Amino acid sequence: MIIVMQAEADQDQIQDVEAQLSRMGFTPHRIKGVLRTVIGAVGDPKIVYPTSLERLPGVDKVLPVTAPYQLVSRQVKPDDSLIRVGDTVIGGEALVVMAGPCAVESWDHLITVARQVKLSGASILRGGAFKPRTSPYSFQGLEHEGLKLLARAREETGLTIVTEVLTPQEVELVARYADIIQIGARNMQNFSLLREVGRCGKPVLLKRGLASTVEEWLMAAEYILAEKNYQVILCERGIRTFENSTRSTLDISSVPQIKQLSHLPVIVDPSHAGGSWRLVLPLSLAAIASGADGLMVEVHHKPAEAFCDGGQSLTPENFASMMSAAARVAAAVGRSLPVVC
Amino acid sequence: MIIVMQAEADQDQIQDVEAQLSRMGFTPHRIKGVLRTVIGAVGDPKIVYPTSLERLPGVDKVLPVTAPYQLVSRQVKPDDSLIRVGDTVIGGEALVVMAGPCAVESWDHLITVARQVKLSGASILRGGAFKPRTSPYSFQGLEHEGLKLLARAREETGLTIVTEVLTPQEVELVARYADIIQIGARNMQNFSLLREVGRCGKPVLLKRGLASTVEEWLMAAEYILAEKNYQVILCERGIRTFENSTRSTLDISSVPQIKQLSHLPVIVDPSHAGGSWRLVLPLSLAAIASGADGLMVEVHHKPAEAFCDGGQSLTPENFASMMSAAARVAAAVGRSLPVVC
Amino acid sequence: MIIVMQAEADQDQIQDVEAQLSRMGFTPHRIKGVLRTVIGAVGDPKIVYPTSLERLPGVDKVLPVTAPYQLVSRQVKPDDSLIRVGDTVIGGEALVVMAGPCAVESWDHLITVARQVKLSGASILRGGAFKPRTSPYSFQGLEHEGLKLLARAREETGLTIVTEVLTPQEVELVARYADIIQIGARNMQNFSLLREVGRCGKPVLLKRGLASTVEEWLMAAEYILAEKNYQVILCERGIRTFENSTRSTLDISSVPQIKQLSHLPVIVDPSHAGGSWRLVLPLSLAAIASGADGLMVEVHHKPAEAFCDGGQSLTPENFASMMSAAARVAAAVGRSLPVVC
Amino acid sequence: MIIVMQAEADQDQIQDVEAQLSRMGFTPHRIKGVLRTVIGAVGDPKIVYPTSLERLPGVDKVLPVTAPYQLVSRQVKPDDSLIRVGDTVIGGEALVVMAGPCAVESWDHLITVARQVKLSGASILRGGAFKPRTSPYSFQGLEHEGLKLLARAREETGLTIVTEVLTPQEVELVARYADIIQIGARNMQNFSLLREVGRCGKPVLLKRGLASTVEEWLMAAEYILAEKNYQVILCERGIRTFENSTRSTLDISSVPQIKQLSHLPVIVDPSHAGGSWRLVLPLSLAAIASGADGLMVEVHHKPAEAFCDGGQSLTPENFASMMSAAARVAAAVGRSLPVVC
Repeated sequence: MIIVMQAEADQDQIQDVEAQLSRMGFTPHRIKGVLRTVIGAVGDPKIVYPTSLERLPGVDKVLPVTAPYQLVSRQVKPDDSLIRVGDTVIGGEALVVMAGPCAVESWDHLITVARQVKLSGASILRGGAFKPRTSPYSFQGLEHEGLKLLARAREETGLTIVTEVLTPQEVELVARYADIIQIGARNMQNFSLLREVGRCGKPVLLKRGLASTVEEWLMAAEYILAEKNYQVILCERGIRTFENSTRSTLDISSVPQIKQLSHLPVIVDPSHAGGSWRLVLPLSLAAIASGADGLMVEVHHKPAEAFCDGGQSLTPENFASMMSAAARVAAAVGRSLPVVC
Repeated sequence: MIIVMQAEADQDQIQDVEAQLSRMGFTPHRIKGVLRTVIGAVGDPKIVYPTSLERLPGVDKVLPVTAPYQLVSRQVKPDDSLIRVGDTVIGGEALVVMAGPCAVESWDHLITVARQVKLSGASILRGGAFKPRTSPYSFQGLEHEGLKLLARAREETGLTIVTEVLTPQEVELVARYADIIQIGARNMQNFSLLREVGRCGKPVLLKRGLASTVEEWLMAAEYILAEKNYQVILCERGIRTFENSTRSTLDISSVPQIKQLSHLPVIVDPSHAGGSWRLVLPLSLAAIASGADGLMVEVHHKPAEAFCDGGQSLTPENFASMMSAAARVAAAVGRSLPVVC
Repeated sequence: MIIVMQAEADQDQIQDVEAQLSRMGFTPHRIKGVLRTVIGAVGDPKIVYPTSLERLPGVDKVLPVTAPYQLVSRQVKPDDSLIRVGDTVIGGEALVVMAGPCAVESWDHLITVARQVKLSGASILRGGAFKPRTSPYSFQGLEHEGLKLLARAREETGLTIVTEVLTPQEVELVARYADIIQIGARNMQNFSLLREVGRCGKPVLLKRGLASTVEEWLMAAEYILAEKNYQVILCERGIRTFENSTRSTLDISSVPQIKQLSHLPVIVDPSHAGGSWRLVLPLSLAAIASGADGLMVEVHHKPAEAFCDGGQSLTPENFASMMSAAARVAAAVGRSLPVVC
Repeated sequence: MIIVMQAEADQDQIQDVEAQLSRMGFTPHRIKGVLRTVIGAVGDPKIVYPTSLERLPGVDKVLPVTAPYQLVSRQVKPDDSLIRVGDTVIGGEALVVMAGPCAVESWDHLITVARQVKLSGASILRGGAFKPRTSPYSFQGLEHEGLKLLARAREETGLTIVTEVLTPQEVELVARYADIIQIGARNMQNFSLLREVGRCGKPVLLKRGLASTVEEWLMAAEYILAEKNYQVILCERGIRTFENSTRSTLDISSVPQIKQLSHLPVIVDPSHAGGSWRLVLPLSLAAIASGADGLMVEVHHKPAEAFCDGGQSLTPENFASMMSAAARVAAAVGRSLPVVC
């Protein structure tokens, strides 16, 4: 890190900072500038102490030089990580599409949607059994019963299952049914939950928090890898900005950013990002063009009657058209998307 | 709610929307405008279905009219809620100051700071035993041992204790030691945790999430009240914006907004909002002037050696000066702040 | 618009609001809800008075129903607008690429870049003669001399010219040399400038402001169309958010949003959005996949020596590769991009 | 500045960067870290070239060390600047209040409001003659006629006048009538306008842009000072964030930030920040408590009939109460506010 001294800092203050850096295990390197002195601190990049140093007299600010993540970094592992789930590989040449309803509502509903998304080329079925809802009065999911329906849908269709877990205690239960455990945007910095899914042995889909930088997102993934679970799939789903004509603002730049910084696969959720079914097609195509390894899309066969997120759900027909268009863009960027029908 | 039809919507589409509203238990009221028709839907304000309606043909958008919170609303309970913790009342004429270190680091450190903040007029001791940290390699708190030290500090000083809980499983443990349970910004929408603290019988300090609107913050409080725990204190601690010269952007307007919308007390955390000890004094005074019911401030007797958040921690001397200044502003707005020394 | 009354509003207050609406030329329609009354106001959608009504006793808030733009709206003109500049058509099936240096630096430099971008398929040359710079001490552009160099480059290459104008007085001068007049992001709500370019007879490229919603952007375009200049090209170039690993956050959703709301063509500037040459390729492909009508890209043959924006400039070689990749994605979405070499 | 090399950068790349820095007039200082090399560049702090260096092979990023402003910096001029306008001094111990209608609507209206705000202690009359409006169909101001009415109100009341200018050509006209020239938020980076008011000889009130950092705001002021006009008053009026229950988010922290970084006075506009008359009182008090040198407040004697911004306008009675409360808070922080009645 770099310690920037105030213009008026005196020799004693500079020496005190250098002494403190030495005590912390860093080697200080002083550079006297025209207006002020800066001190480069060389040492273990995992030590993160910066703000405390700002309380030493004469210090103006501390600038970190090295990103604080290690295991998720492409520098540590230059080749792409491939996550295997059943017959599906995430992060390879073939794109992966996870599709299904926002929430598991009933068996009939689930199996109808599952069959239809499979027909159009989805290989993973999404569906919430535990739902994080802004209002305590909204539908909160079928919980354990929902997990069972998902497992039954897997048996009938061969689709693998991704579903969200909300608390550390429920990780074991959800992991018993799911093939991929989803950490939702609101829980991206629920560190106890991250550690728990880090120990569950199943691949983890880690959604980006609404107010999280790319660096914080990678640090959240680092929590999971630090527990020796290297099967993490990142999912961009939009960030919160002043623009309120969309539910969130899809930060499409995060896809190539992640690809440069990390070896982990990254997919995009155009449904939550845009918040409107009308935006799912263009955002899906943009995601693939920008280098995403796949998509996660909400599909409902009667969206106007959906228990949640109906406004952003595709019908199976919409989904089929989207998949055809997506396959063409995938081919244009050297990827493939198996479209069955 | 109001359903706004597209300009090109036809009679059949309008009637279909009205029929669907009737099925959902609403009474539709049609208004034919110059360019388009809007339909007012009268019914139970707790029913929240809006986005699904956007999938009906001819619907442009749905505008909610009534805020979705009930129990936290000043309409439901017009008089201010007072939260009692030991001899302290939060939400009354007297302001309440919670002060102490970011993290409990050791007994000597904790008791030193505790005695000094008490001397300057704080009535509640803050200190983290379970710490949510961006990096898995940073100090994560003394955990159970930290809770014991906090309890011992309470015995020695008479200060009551506020400390953070991170997971539902630990609520029982934390509630055994703490007088007020803190929900941190990252967990504001950790709904399982909200429900669990809703059942713990202790007052809850609910920090605002970095990307949360005032309405979402009140909905998070609603989760706690819905479990019949009415002792909720809100804490504004800054939101995330493009301005990066401060750690967060203190949304000072949220204080009078909360006062108008809710009966719950609201305090301000100037330490996390500004992220710099230099900003704590002016932000504390601004908070009191805007109508806040108190402050939560980080104090460390050797901030340059703090395990975390040193850069934003006041020394006990800084804190004493801040309290004197705060008492003068409190008096100017008809409130009081007991400054002991 | 919809006037939402407070829950405690009485009959007199409701009647006063209705009387005021009538005086303003609206017909009021009252709907009595469970908790509160709302009043629909039917009348001329161009009348924009909402906030004043919030001062009437008993009024809670005013919700606009109709977007305040008219001429730019797809409702008013359902078919896409085509803007013709020389032999180039913007907004049709063929995509248009504007490329060139951030600033015109010298003849040799300009003509070198111009020839190379033409070779790769660009049809319009960009280059700043008047530069809006954050610092008064930075290079401010070659001004009139820069315009002359641009005109000379047009003669030599056949490329048409787009360049920025900063003040109303200079519109006449810039319009004498440029084929398309650019309004930069900082001037999106410089209404005098908008009116002036509305009168200049040349097509206008209107960049989105960093803090502007899609609706405000369309209202800015409305200023130009209201002066009877219908040749407006919108340009998304990123908005300002908390994410600071990129210069701005490309709001890719704005492309399909604009396509749904307006008949005007919209292009994307991936250089300013990402702020890094490494992001230009993926963001360009995403832009085309999302439905953009073209791109505006910074190219410099020696970016490490550029007077400005070197970090985000492509070399001519980078640009050629990008154009090949872009042509493939264009074809995948049913558009074409003429790649010469 | 600090150039951070990529971890994989080789010796030749490091030497090339050092050579380029030397050519640019900097002295390079190399620090070899554990993971990567950083190079400190010592030289003229006014040279701003960072992004171009990012195109040199092996460079990861460039970190600026010194803020790019000079003349506005408190380091250059440690004592507070005092701006004199008639008998009023801005930036001294006494706070200054500018009050009046959003727009000049008519003589009767203007003189009524002017007399009443004077009676309550305002010393400067605000009122827009040229209005920047989001919609081209909204009232755009009385223009020259409005300026004449303002001048007449000054004669009758003794209040000095602040009013906005929108374009460089109108600076001379506005300066003929106004005592303080206002640059609105939308024009904060209208650099031609900044230069023109820098040459007009009148004090300038510079509002912060909605998407502008504190540093960019100070750089905008630097444009005016660079023209030798040192009479600049900064005005915080809120920034644009995701929170939409207020019109903007008042960044109260910017007040102490400006006080630490600059010698220029800073005032707060609570009317535009909150966008609701109900928030003006608490935000005004917060502004004064945080160290602001004054306020700018919208007052209208019939806000429900105002041509613009009625919802955020105080009545003269509201204003009188606010001034009394503000005077008490001013006294509590060692400032004074002359409240006449």
